[in-house]
Amino acid sequence: MEVKKTMEKIVALAKNRGFVYPGSDIYGGLANAWDYGPLGVELKNNIKNAWWRKFIQENPYNVGVDCAILMNPQVWVASGHVGGFSDPLIDCRDCKTRHRADELIEEWNKANNVSVNVDGWENQQLMQYIKENSVKCPKCGSSNFTDIRKFNLMFKTFQGVTEDSQSELYLRPETAQGIFVNFKNVQRTTRKKIPFGIGQIGKSFRNEITPRNFIFRTREFEQMELEFFCEPGEDLKWFEYWKDFCYNWLVSLGIKEENLKMRDHSKEELSHYSKATTDIEYKFPFGWGELWGIADRTDYDLKQHSEHSKEDLSYFDPTTNEKYIPYCVEPSVGVDRAFLTFLCEAYDEEELEDGDVRVVLRFHPVLAPVKIAVLPLSKKLGEEAWKVYEMLSKKYVCQYDETGSIGKRYRRQDEIGTPYCLTYDFDSQEDASVTIRDRDTMEQVRIKIDELNEYFSSKFDF
Amino acid sequence: MEVKKTMEKIVALAKNRGFVYPGSDIYGGLANAWDYGPLGVELKNNIKNAWWRKFIQENPYNVGVDCAILMNPQVWVASGHVGGFSDPLIDCRDCKTRHRADELIEEWNKANNVSVNVDGWENQQLMQYIKENSVKCPKCGSSNFTDIRKFNLMFKTFQGVTEDSQSELYLRPETAQGIFVNFKNVQRTTRKKIPFGIGQIGKSFRNEITPRNFIFRTREFEQMELEFFCEPGEDLKWFEYWKDFCYNWLVSLGIKEENLKMRDHSKEELSHYSKATTDIEYKFPFGWGELWGIADRTDYDLKQHSEHSKEDLSYFDPTTNEKYIPYCVEPSVGVDRAFLTFLCEAYDEEELEDGDVRVVLRFHPVLAPVKIAVLPLSKKLGEEAWKVYEMLSKKYVCQYDETGSIGKRYRRQDEIGTPYCLTYDFDSQEDASVTIRDRDTMEQVRIKIDELNEYFSSKFDF
Repeated sequence: MEVKKTMEKIVALAKNRGFVYPGSDIYGGLANAWDYGPLGVELKNNIKNAWWRKFIQENPYNVGVDCAILMNPQVWVASGHVGGFSDPLIDCRDCKTRHRADELIEEWNKANNVSVNVDGWENQQLMQYIKENSVKCPKCGSSNFTDIRKFNLMFKTFQGVTEDSQSELYLRPETAQGIFVNFKNVQRTTRKKIPFGIGQIGKSFRNEITPRNFIFRTREFEQMELEFFCEPGEDLKWFEYWKDFCYNWLVSLGIKEENLKMRDHSKEELSHYSKATTDIEYKFPFGWGELWGIADRTDYDLKQHSEHSKEDLSYFDPTTNEKYIPYCVEPSVGVDRAFLTFLCEAYDEEELEDGDVRVVLRFHPVLAPVKIAVLPLSKKLGEEAWKVYEMLSKKYVCQYDETGSIGKRYRRQDEIGTPYCLTYDFDSQEDASVTIRDRDTMEQVRIKIDELNEYFSSKFDF
Repeated sequence: MEVKKTMEKIVALAKNRGFVYPGSDIYGGLANAWDYGPLGVELKNNIKNAWWRKFIQENPYNVGVDCAILMNPQVWVASGHVGGFSDPLIDCRDCKTRHRADELIEEWNKANNVSVNVDGWENQQLMQYIKENSVKCPKCGSSNFTDIRKFNLMFKTFQGVTEDSQSELYLRPETAQGIFVNFKNVQRTTRKKIPFGIGQIGKSFRNEITPRNFIFRTREFEQMELEFFCEPGEDLKWFEYWKDFCYNWLVSLGIKEENLKMRDHSKEELSHYSKATTDIEYKFPFGWGELWGIADRTDYDLKQHSEHSKEDLSYFDPTTNEKYIPYCVEPSVGVDRAFLTFLCEAYDEEELEDGDVRVVLRFHPVLAPVKIAVLPLSKKLGEEAWKVYEMLSKKYVCQYDETGSIGKRYRRQDEIGTPYCLTYDFDSQEDASVTIRDRDTMEQVRIKIDELNEYFSSKFDF
């Protein structure tokens, strides 16, 4: 049976089962803002924990931080965001629709089967291309556009009791700069030696003109970023190391290799400070999309902050007595995008023996929002089954469900990706055992209740 | 030996050991913004996890959500924040210093040994008191004040490509409203029956005029809020339930009862929508301060949102066939304030036999940022000791330290609250054992390396 994974099906499941709701839903929402429901928050936390464990806690090189979203605005001057973090805006003079110039061209190219990559183009090049090719407005069909203007993507706010420019602040557009600004403090207090990395998980905000594709691109999003500092000249070695590390992390959590590809940025596409960048792309139902960016940022950021802050951010190597500004390799991934990846990958439909079709989310057990469902075969068995639920819920996220036929309850758990259903039946009291059904194979085993903790002890390892 | 816990000592330790750094430090900071360092982020995450486990995952009544910080602005009209969430501002005409009128009076009362509680006073009452008592500016001593003005505490920002009022948004000042707005979605998708609760952990922002006391009051902060929905008339019973639950959670994590007190709000002090509110206060080094607020919010919020959104947010009880707007009990605590509480409580100084004084953070093991330190007695033993470190770090956050005398390394671990130090010595290779030192008793035991996992298996239970 070939399974057609569509965004429609996946978004509908997400809304109906409590993974993701439209933000501010009862007020008609807010342009592509989303809230995570009871199952969504568990899945999201499990993804964050799996990253934190492998990238920070178990990794002998790395430590974590958690920096404020609101930073001194000078940070964004030094990082280049005040000057250069903008989208090229263009308006159709006839229908007044606003476009991103690069996306306008991409869409036009696609419709006309032209393959020209506009990544990294300056506004002038974009404008020239639009004119020379008579690119048309996808809404009204006219070619009557304004000039391209730069629109800064940072959200602005005001701190303190007046709204003057003295207290103008930005919501951080990336978590990375919190790490660079703390490089010295972290190095001093941890006594870490190069090479070492600093990681962070947290919210960032970008005033995107065209947020889209469910939680793939939103204005408010969460990032998991690692800044790995090394000796200049060692950077490309570590760049390869972290590319592999990220790729393997995804595969170890159940992403099939056929749905992943590495895409190296071309010279034209590279940011001016980057020596090399590779995107790990995932095959979403709407096409290949960037999931993880791994970039060799050289010494750009620490140099910029050294200059602007007047603090010397170089590193003194106690073994060689050398002093230098470390190079930095950055693997950066969005939590929401990783969430969408794992959700899409997990989605499956399977035809059963009786001809019915079951929807099943085949999450890696460590990511599954609910680990074990406890199902009494009859409500009469509720009291005893509840005791088993209480025992297991001390260690695992469990659900207790006594409503509907057992088949219906299995379907419900399949649909939210629960790896194990545990049925307490009329024999359970006598043999002190329960039946455990495996989500993927649907096979059942009979296990003694007092052996359950041992049975599950290694099931959620990662 | 009497230990003098002062904020100075605790803040200095936090900065020097990597718990908390000043935010944007190399740029001279940003008014009372703070970043959590490598140890701080672990402690903070452990606090959040301990809350999430006991309030959400293990609790059969409750589920969690994770809502966007940016919400439809109508939410804040309905909640009353646009109209009424403000501080009373007053300026000294002579020295131009800006004050919060209530704090101005409190400070003056304190200096003059007057005990008048101004909580809940209207601006008019505050102004009258200032005039009648000739309250003086603490900076210049004059009594020449402007009128009191309301200053809204919400951070404002703009979404989309223009800065007109259409796209004016607020950073949420509390996580609670995300829960109320999702009440129907959560109830529908989880099929929960009243009573049930919805909890959330996340950042909130308040443009406080006077942030102060380290991380006690900051403009950007993180909250752990539970909204517990029940039948009207059952609310005061659940109010008592959650008061006890919160109090016991703190005690189970090592807060001494002598440092806690319950303070019921007086009638005058109660918010207009609240039937009862109790604060759990903690004895900080700077005095008693609010840690946890437990409030009976009645049906105020769901009613407001029903009216403003035109969505019926009432609940239909399938057993009684009755329809009603549920009442709501809210236990609300700040993560940063809880962090400060656990840090202050843990701080201790102890005189040793040799007359030296050790600083030790006596964290509950589940909260300790580092669980186990692995210390080779000599660098020559590094290779073998590292293997033990690698084995344990698969399960626990561990540190490896081979620098300095063993006594110095113990002191370092004491100072960051590591419950167990494990020393690999010259006998270890022969007897395949290590010495484990307990942080609090400083007693040592000899344990076989292949029994370590079993030894530690229940040490971090909670």
